[in-house]
Amino acid sequence: MSDADHTITVTERSQVRRARERGRYDRGYINQVLDRSVLCHLGYLDGKHPVVTPTVHWRIDDYLYWHGAKAARYMHASQNAEVCVTVTHLDGLVLARSAFHHSANYRSVMIFGRAQPVHDRDHKEAALKAMIEKFYPDRWHYLRPMTAGEFEGTAVVRVAIDEASAKVRSGPPVDDEADYQLPIWAGVVPVSQQFGEPLADPRQPADAKAPAHAVDLGTRLD
Amino acid sequence: MSDADHTITVTERSQVRRARERGRYDRGYINQVLDRSVLCHLGYLDGKHPVVTPTVHWRIDDYLYWHGAKAARYMHASQNAEVCVTVTHLDGLVLARSAFHHSANYRSVMIFGRAQPVHDRDHKEAALKAMIEKFYPDRWHYLRPMTAGEFEGTAVVRVAIDEASAKVRSGPPVDDEADYQLPIWAGVVPVSQQFGEPLADPRQPADAKAPAHAVDLGTRLD
Repeated sequence: MSDADHTITVTERSQVRRARERGRYDRGYINQVLDRSVLCHLGYLDGKHPVVTPTVHWRIDDYLYWHGAKAARYMHASQNAEVCVTVTHLDGLVLARSAFHHSANYRSVMIFGRAQPVHDRDHKEAALKAMIEKFYPDRWHYLRPMTAGEFEGTAVVRVAIDEASAKVRSGPPVDDEADYQLPIWAGVVPVSQQFGEPLADPRQPADAKAPAHAVDLGTRLD
Repeated sequence: MSDADHTITVTERSQVRRARERGRYDRGYINQVLDRSVLCHLGYLDGKHPVVTPTVHWRIDDYLYWHGAKAARYMHASQNAEVCVTVTHLDGLVLARSAFHHSANYRSVMIFGRAQPVHDRDHKEAALKAMIEKFYPDRWHYLRPMTAGEFEGTAVVRVAIDEASAKVRSGPPVDDEADYQLPIWAGVVPVSQQFGEPLADPRQPADAKAPAHAVDLGTRLD
């Protein structure tokens, strides 16, 4: 892979235009936002109207992947089509001294591009394995293997992480200078996603111990 | 408002087609999913391509609202245009005995419709107040009042919660019957959003006590 493949392209549609100082275009940061999140919101056209479908995503090198039943609308409508994939972490709610300066702390990424189906069998199997391993390292090898029917019924689609940008807000409220005098409480309520104690399937033997990859999700995901 | 206004319309595009048993069309449930969430992902067209922008949303009666700077792309492109607004709560990660049956527990809502700007001054002010009050009850009245410039520079848009559906998954993995015999740990890792201890703005007097509405967000939001 050439160095050029690693460049993030800033275009009219991917450039952060409002609050420009919140925009970030470095691939390392963008990858981190993507890798630490479970769900993306996938935007595509169904005929002429936009649809936004939440789905699990994962990354291999400079591509973002998603999957689903071959017959699902979001799978057939997103392949060979322009998409916008957005990932958002909500990090806090920002209470200011005026309604206008209330805000949220967040990290988000938007990716624009033409999504392509993964048809090659080895590539598709490696991609499905990478999905499981993103969330649950070392789980793939001891699962009941995929059947031919499961493999055929599942579609995998990817988009290049090329025309992409991150947008970030962090820190306390930014109020009008005169408003700092006002006797109004201001600050941030931190928001974070918690991964709780694993709940064993009721049909699990009672003495089965949850594997490490079900206990330490919070170390990999925000 | 007539009873007919309260009916959820099930259409080709809003009907849940994959895993139909997960679909819900009752307004009470849909409203609860919307009201307990902070962010939506707003899908709209910018020219011919789809864009998905995360933003804060709130509800008044049978309409969902969002706001932003008048000049922001998502504000001018979403008004008088077809949109799809999606709200998603991630409730758990579902570990099954085969890769195929891994899943997520979630509650989501999709709303389709033509979004309309709120031009009427009283309506717009009431809407902005309702946004603050959704998150922080009784905060509006002691904030520094909006200036004319802030009011003019802010746009408010809404869409009818009419052509809408919810989709829900909950509970343990559903494995192939034969797979329950396998010695593979299966279960659910619960996921939830936590609202932490308020952090006072560093420019806040040290003895200022956070108001109740900054402390009890977790009672109103998931």
